[in-house]
Amino acid sequence: MNLRLVFKICGRLLIVEAATMLISLLVCLWYGEDPAPFLKSILIIAVVGFALSLIPAERHFFVREGFFSAGMIWILIGLAGALPFWFCGQFPSLVDCIFESFSGFTTTGATILADIEALPRGILFWRSFTHWVGGIGVLTLSLALLPALGARSQYLARAETPGPIASKLVPRQSSSSIILYVIYCSLTLIETVLLRLAGMPLYDAVLHAFSCAGTGGFSNMNLSVGAYQNPACEIIIAVFLVLFSMNFGMFFLLVCRRFREVWKNDELRFFLGIVLLSSLLIAINIFPLYQDVWVALRHGFFHTASIISSTGFATVDYIHWPMFSQFVLVLLMICGACSCSTGGGLKCSRVLLLLRSIRREIQRIIHPRSVMVVRLDGKAVSDDTIRSVLVFICTYFLIVFFATLLVAMDNLSFTTTFTAVLACISNTGPGLELVGPYGNFQMFSAFNKLVLSLCMVIGRLEILPILVLFSRNAWKRT
Amino acid sequence: MNLRLVFKICGRLLIVEAATMLISLLVCLWYGEDPAPFLKSILIIAVVGFALSLIPAERHFFVREGFFSAGMIWILIGLAGALPFWFCGQFPSLVDCIFESFSGFTTTGATILADIEALPRGILFWRSFTHWVGGIGVLTLSLALLPALGARSQYLARAETPGPIASKLVPRQSSSSIILYVIYCSLTLIETVLLRLAGMPLYDAVLHAFSCAGTGGFSNMNLSVGAYQNPACEIIIAVFLVLFSMNFGMFFLLVCRRFREVWKNDELRFFLGIVLLSSLLIAINIFPLYQDVWVALRHGFFHTASIISSTGFATVDYIHWPMFSQFVLVLLMICGACSCSTGGGLKCSRVLLLLRSIRREIQRIIHPRSVMVVRLDGKAVSDDTIRSVLVFICTYFLIVFFATLLVAMDNLSFTTTFTAVLACISNTGPGLELVGPYGNFQMFSAFNKLVLSLCMVIGRLEILPILVLFSRNAWKRT
Repeated sequence: MNLRLVFKICGRLLIVEAATMLISLLVCLWYGEDPAPFLKSILIIAVVGFALSLIPAERHFFVREGFFSAGMIWILIGLAGALPFWFCGQFPSLVDCIFESFSGFTTTGATILADIEALPRGILFWRSFTHWVGGIGVLTLSLALLPALGARSQYLARAETPGPIASKLVPRQSSSSIILYVIYCSLTLIETVLLRLAGMPLYDAVLHAFSCAGTGGFSNMNLSVGAYQNPACEIIIAVFLVLFSMNFGMFFLLVCRRFREVWKNDELRFFLGIVLLSSLLIAINIFPLYQDVWVALRHGFFHTASIISSTGFATVDYIHWPMFSQFVLVLLMICGACSCSTGGGLKCSRVLLLLRSIRREIQRIIHPRSVMVVRLDGKAVSDDTIRSVLVFICTYFLIVFFATLLVAMDNLSFTTTFTAVLACISNTGPGLELVGPYGNFQMFSAFNKLVLSLCMVIGRLEILPILVLFSRNAWKRT
Repeated sequence: MNLRLVFKICGRLLIVEAATMLISLLVCLWYGEDPAPFLKSILIIAVVGFALSLIPAERHFFVREGFFSAGMIWILIGLAGALPFWFCGQFPSLVDCIFESFSGFTTTGATILADIEALPRGILFWRSFTHWVGGIGVLTLSLALLPALGARSQYLARAETPGPIASKLVPRQSSSSIILYVIYCSLTLIETVLLRLAGMPLYDAVLHAFSCAGTGGFSNMNLSVGAYQNPACEIIIAVFLVLFSMNFGMFFLLVCRRFREVWKNDELRFFLGIVLLSSLLIAINIFPLYQDVWVALRHGFFHTASIISSTGFATVDYIHWPMFSQFVLVLLMICGACSCSTGGGLKCSRVLLLLRSIRREIQRIIHPRSVMVVRLDGKAVSDDTIRSVLVFICTYFLIVFFATLLVAMDNLSFTTTFTAVLACISNTGPGLELVGPYGNFQMFSAFNKLVLSLCMVIGRLEILPILVLFSRNAWKRT
């Protein structure tokens, strides 16, 4: 493992993080708040980053370095991002700051804060901004870094996914990254403008647009989106959550007016089908609570979009809904958004491939002699890819169970414990019972806050980079 | 699909079921109870069975017929086994009788009865005897039927499992079946004698030995094994539960004095390691409740053995234990016993293969050029087998989630709903909260009792036979 190069890259990215923190510093100054937390943090991060970036390193960079550095970057950036929270003095402990920062950069949106509105505006801006930065990071990772790992990639990244994807449209990687950032920024900007027009204050509109873009879930209000009691805002946010859950390659295709390919994309159809079905099921199930078709449909659609995109915004406290609706939300949490989006969870394409693999196993029994191929977007998927997908899904649940076992040591209820882990590893944020949308993660022990933080990174980086970090062999110098 | 032959086979097995019911009739007469429920049931089952067995059918029998008839047999036998419960008039509804009968034949041990001791002795005997018959059925299925499906079997049956197994020791299938039944009967007999010597009444000893052999969990006491307050009986039962969770091929090897092969069996070592570790973890965790090392260890070992073997006996109400211990039990329920035993769950060999597959994925990233093979008992496992195992595990969780969604319509708590499904599909019986060891399944709706009954059969037959039953293609005549 070329550890020197890994740390050199981490150093450079810490400098970038310090630069992004400057924007929060400006917001802080604009509102006349104490700039000290940001000044101290920027200084420390810049110095450490600069020192790391000076490490002399050879340039060889292979698959393992890619995975290893992805893991290291998220952990270091997360730790560094906790500094402003720590210096502002409003967080109970350092572990709480780290939890909040990890929750931000992994676009999870789980919080340990009971009273969010008590925080300074600069700090709240930074808190939501980490979502937006994290979202860009994930897109860069899934669209730029992973395909570089070649066809043997363990991911369902574009190198292995048949289907329309960014790189096929623009040959050079750097150009596709730029187009990607342009789309990401444009969508964020459009959403901000729409939310402002719908009546949300500008500051709040910006923060919620950041949260939507990264599918994070931090809000500057204690009642999340429910605080505005504004159906127009809810619809705008829900629609943008669906957009940000889509494979970003779709936007390229839309821009190129290749609508037919978008419509023929299996994952997208599957995803939209789930959104439609879940919204309806929840609406029917909660109708007796609201006695209004429109309200039930709106709540159903909003929370479906919020949870399947792994955001975690809420307009009502869904832990008072019937268990059926709550469990639909848990399933959406596990399923997650489309691949190559900022959303979390297993990803729709993996679930779709799983369903088709099962169908093949059954067909094999009934017609043992016929050759069965699993297809996605009309193209055959290799057995190697299918095995990777299956290993991924199994590992996902294995980690969920192992983490639940650790978190169970806090002796909270099974539902709280299990859904807290699910909400963290799927990067959604809220779960059920005590960790519901209007609850928080404060009651967990410091150790388990770190366990849950690690779950967030594991979920965000799709498991393997973090497992590689834990492998003894990976740390050996070459 | 050769449907005629499938129904012919089902008919023959119904006649066998009627014959086994004669034993319960004798017990019923011995205790001077009303023989009418058994007489009516035997008559109906024998007539239907005889009629079905007269169906003229061609003799071709392939993989699909094997899977299809496995599913049909369990469902028909289960339905027929509900008749004595229905005729005795002590069960609230027909669905309750079906649930109890399915729970018996699938060796699950979940009950809808609040007061078990109120039932006549003949009926209680039949209830426990279904476990014993179900256990034989599973062993026959895993040791005799499945290998006949050839190397393309979807199961982790002996045809694909490297390691010492029944068929390799005795060339002809029928002889291995006989040896198998001899071992099964001998172990049941030895356990009955030991329990009697330890002070349990003979009738109770026989019923508990039946439950142990099938790893079912029905007891004739409301407080399960806890009713006897007899540590000796608890230890005997726990040890026999561990024995009945072992691959039955191990007993062949032990009889042949090939101890080295037994000791080198990966699955057995993995299984025993889990039993040891879980017993210790639970004992440490519950020590503050009992303030006695020996009592904590005994409860830890007993419940570990009870749950990992998918039996579900209890000596205390573990839902009052700390959440950590409760969740260890949930994990044991999911993991399950060894393959080719009467236990349920995912099976240790599958979990072991999953862990080794994950290790291989990590190694592949760190050393992309080296060739990595997953081994079991020192022999390479084919990628095809691994894919089957992974599909199995994923399908397992998919069915758990889907069933939980249906059962959630009863609007009970998440913990009750989720663990009820887990307890049924893993054939364990008790779960947490309302379906804990001293709870019962009465509060579920009739529809969901049938859903849970289906889960039991799905778990018992390891999923695919039931999925084949639901496939439209399978019902086409050839």
